[in-house]
Amino acid sequence: MEKALNDTAPDLNRASDPDPIADDEIGLSPDFVRKVVDRIDAGDAPSVRAAAVDLHPSDVAELIELLRPDERRTLVAILGPDLDIAALSELDEGLRDEVMDYIGPGRVAEALADLDTDDAVYLLEDMEESAQQALLSRMPDEDRAQIERSLEYEEDSAGRLMQRDIVVVPPHWNVGQAIDHLREADDLPETFFEIFVVDEMYHAIGTVPLSRVMRTKRPVPIQSIMDVEQTLIPADMDQEEVAHQFEKYNLVSAAVVDEDDRLVGMVTVDDVVEVIQEEAGEDLRRLAGVGDEALTDTVIKTARSRFPWLFANLFTAAIAAVVISAFGVSIEKMVTLAILMPVVAALAGNAGTQTMTVTVRAMATRDLVDFNVGRVISREVLVAFINGFIFAVLMGLGVGVIFGDWELSGVIAVSMVITLGFAGLSGILIPLALDRAGADPAISSSVFLIALTDAVSFLAFLGLATWLLL
Amino acid sequence: MEKALNDTAPDLNRASDPDPIADDEIGLSPDFVRKVVDRIDAGDAPSVRAAAVDLHPSDVAELIELLRPDERRTLVAILGPDLDIAALSELDEGLRDEVMDYIGPGRVAEALADLDTDDAVYLLEDMEESAQQALLSRMPDEDRAQIERSLEYEEDSAGRLMQRDIVVVPPHWNVGQAIDHLREADDLPETFFEIFVVDEMYHAIGTVPLSRVMRTKRPVPIQSIMDVEQTLIPADMDQEEVAHQFEKYNLVSAAVVDEDDRLVGMVTVDDVVEVIQEEAGEDLRRLAGVGDEALTDTVIKTARSRFPWLFANLFTAAIAAVVISAFGVSIEKMVTLAILMPVVAALAGNAGTQTMTVTVRAMATRDLVDFNVGRVISREVLVAFINGFIFAVLMGLGVGVIFGDWELSGVIAVSMVITLGFAGLSGILIPLALDRAGADPAISSSVFLIALTDAVSFLAFLGLATWLLL
Repeated sequence: MEKALNDTAPDLNRASDPDPIADDEIGLSPDFVRKVVDRIDAGDAPSVRAAAVDLHPSDVAELIELLRPDERRTLVAILGPDLDIAALSELDEGLRDEVMDYIGPGRVAEALADLDTDDAVYLLEDMEESAQQALLSRMPDEDRAQIERSLEYEEDSAGRLMQRDIVVVPPHWNVGQAIDHLREADDLPETFFEIFVVDEMYHAIGTVPLSRVMRTKRPVPIQSIMDVEQTLIPADMDQEEVAHQFEKYNLVSAAVVDEDDRLVGMVTVDDVVEVIQEEAGEDLRRLAGVGDEALTDTVIKTARSRFPWLFANLFTAAIAAVVISAFGVSIEKMVTLAILMPVVAALAGNAGTQTMTVTVRAMATRDLVDFNVGRVISREVLVAFINGFIFAVLMGLGVGVIFGDWELSGVIAVSMVITLGFAGLSGILIPLALDRAGADPAISSSVFLIALTDAVSFLAFLGLATWLLL
Repeated sequence: MEKALNDTAPDLNRASDPDPIADDEIGLSPDFVRKVVDRIDAGDAPSVRAAAVDLHPSDVAELIELLRPDERRTLVAILGPDLDIAALSELDEGLRDEVMDYIGPGRVAEALADLDTDDAVYLLEDMEESAQQALLSRMPDEDRAQIERSLEYEEDSAGRLMQRDIVVVPPHWNVGQAIDHLREADDLPETFFEIFVVDEMYHAIGTVPLSRVMRTKRPVPIQSIMDVEQTLIPADMDQEEVAHQFEKYNLVSAAVVDEDDRLVGMVTVDDVVEVIQEEAGEDLRRLAGVGDEALTDTVIKTARSRFPWLFANLFTAAIAAVVISAFGVSIEKMVTLAILMPVVAALAGNAGTQTMTVTVRAMATRDLVDFNVGRVISREVLVAFINGFIFAVLMGLGVGVIFGDWELSGVIAVSMVITLGFAGLSGILIPLALDRAGADPAISSSVFLIALTDAVSFLAFLGLATWLLL
């Protein structure tokens, strides 16, 4: 497709163009996007259609995200029934409702019934209750029942993530029977990587990777080639923990079980990859005080989502201002204090942020656990004091040389050790405390941390200076 | 195993204990770890052996990471030849060399030859040249040649990540022939999810997921069931881009090709999951000025790796100090300026960090591309000015009411708009500029950003105050 667009216009209508994904350039090239947008703006429906109709659903989603709202509507209208509904699950959440509106509930409901349950649930779960019900009521009874059962699980749980159509065989079957069953069954998932072995009570008792089934002769019993050491995922497990299991044990799919260890579905690695990206982005944004925003959000929505953190910061900064104002007289007498105090606060804030980031990340990857928490805390405090002493010497020397005041030099050196040590301790204790309290350790750790390190820096430096120098 | 340890000591020696992974508790419980460590410290080899020998390699790695160095050595000695070498690839990089030393090069070389090429390369690539050569020279010629060819690709490229043993069939075979080939071939990877179809020149022309092979009758030609729209990964593609392709197109494995589109290997999703976690952690750490550190690093190594960023921060903070010192006379006359200036700087720093984080993340997930960069920049600036105006009003009112000085109130309000607007613009332009210059947009963005927002905040606020009020 891209090649076609790079050539001449009439080529766009050729149905036999090479596939863009297998093309020289992977995905959408900026040039391709620009040309499609030009055609959309020019109202050239046949060209747009020819260019977009054979794109991978993920590329269609990317294209939609890059368009302006009016262009999106036009593209959806041009594609009509050829728009692959799978593109919806690849879209930013904020855009999904918009595009579904363009498509219309009738076609969406029809398409949902054809999707694997996990994909259908993914599209439905964030919708408003009324819109969700409207779509569900248009779906065939059996599909609706399956989706409704998945929606009963809590948000972000394995139950929401799982696919209900799975391949299940009894242990006494042989490989040949299993293969014949696969060839005949018609409600199987689109792709799958292992088959699950269950007993008569539907307890998950083993798994066999497809590659092993393939490589085994037909008369061999499944029981003799199955892995019994499998990672069973409880349906109420949080998706972050599910992702951790997949990463740790290098899984491609895993059985999901109910509270009686009965098989209810499977989670596949493609959904887990999504979860990992989501959670990593979430930690990053939360540490910086940004909500769940996407580039396609409106300016007003974005400004509003960033406001609360800045507002909280206004109060924490006010605490620092109150501390400084207590030493107003000292600053009037010795204005150098006002010049140096932001340096102390900056270093403390940064040292604390380093520790906090390492802590939050180690908690996310489960490297920091109950067993080693004591050791890690003392390690962090030690690191903080080592750098505290080094920067005490550096700052002390610098201030002594530049201002020729070796008493002030001593004061800033001592403040440096106190504040960097304190910053290290806060950097690890704040996220740990938030976690113990049941909160996300990433969220608002920075607000508390910077408020504390600022206040302690100003207090230590201005306090010591007032006490010793004035 | 965990259950055994929770009971009585002799139970530890039973070979028929339930597997800990399929056990009630997934992975290692803190209690299990504590008991194993107690037995290691007590020199109770049989109990330790019984507890650890059947653990999943990933759990063995986790256990090793949680131990003190002397305990690690003891555990490796106790396990002896029963230590599954696969545990090595799950270990923190810093610990790998240590544990390989305990195991000895002879056994490591032997075990490496049995691993899939991608896993062997993963273990070898970070070693020192001499240690790497020593191990390679002990390996069988064929394995060594394969690994050496992979090591010729650049670090962090698809060529390093790929597995060389792949399943390849010609398009004219039928399903039956493919299955028979699978049953007979003996150099296949441990698990695989699709088979690759190549022409006589070994060009990758299609793929068939195993589940489709299984579900198709024996006489059907492979050609008629293969997907021709496949994502081909060039061997020199950066691993971050590989991960992006997997995530975007929901892949479980993909063909890796040389510059002539000839199949040279495949990348599987388990390695990609690792890459995604690695890259997400890297962005997070780099934004906070932390290097590639692990919790198992020594205190000295950690302190040293965090020093450079703090040192850079010393200089950027000094710039702010220089700006303030230029207004020393103003501060002496009006000490309120010293009290309020950190508030302006804090808000500007935070607003800038918000924008920068969103920008760095959007670049990592490829949501921010050439096509929409102009639109995103104007969006960010608009968001910054909207919040700038809101906080100008809030700060202006607060200062006016608290200090009863409405001229100062006006000055801080105007400074707020200037600095928040500037912070938003810097937050997006700095990572973009770093990226254009070929640097990682995450690394050191914060140093530049906070240096700039601090300097501009102090300059705007103190400058305006000096000009208008004094």
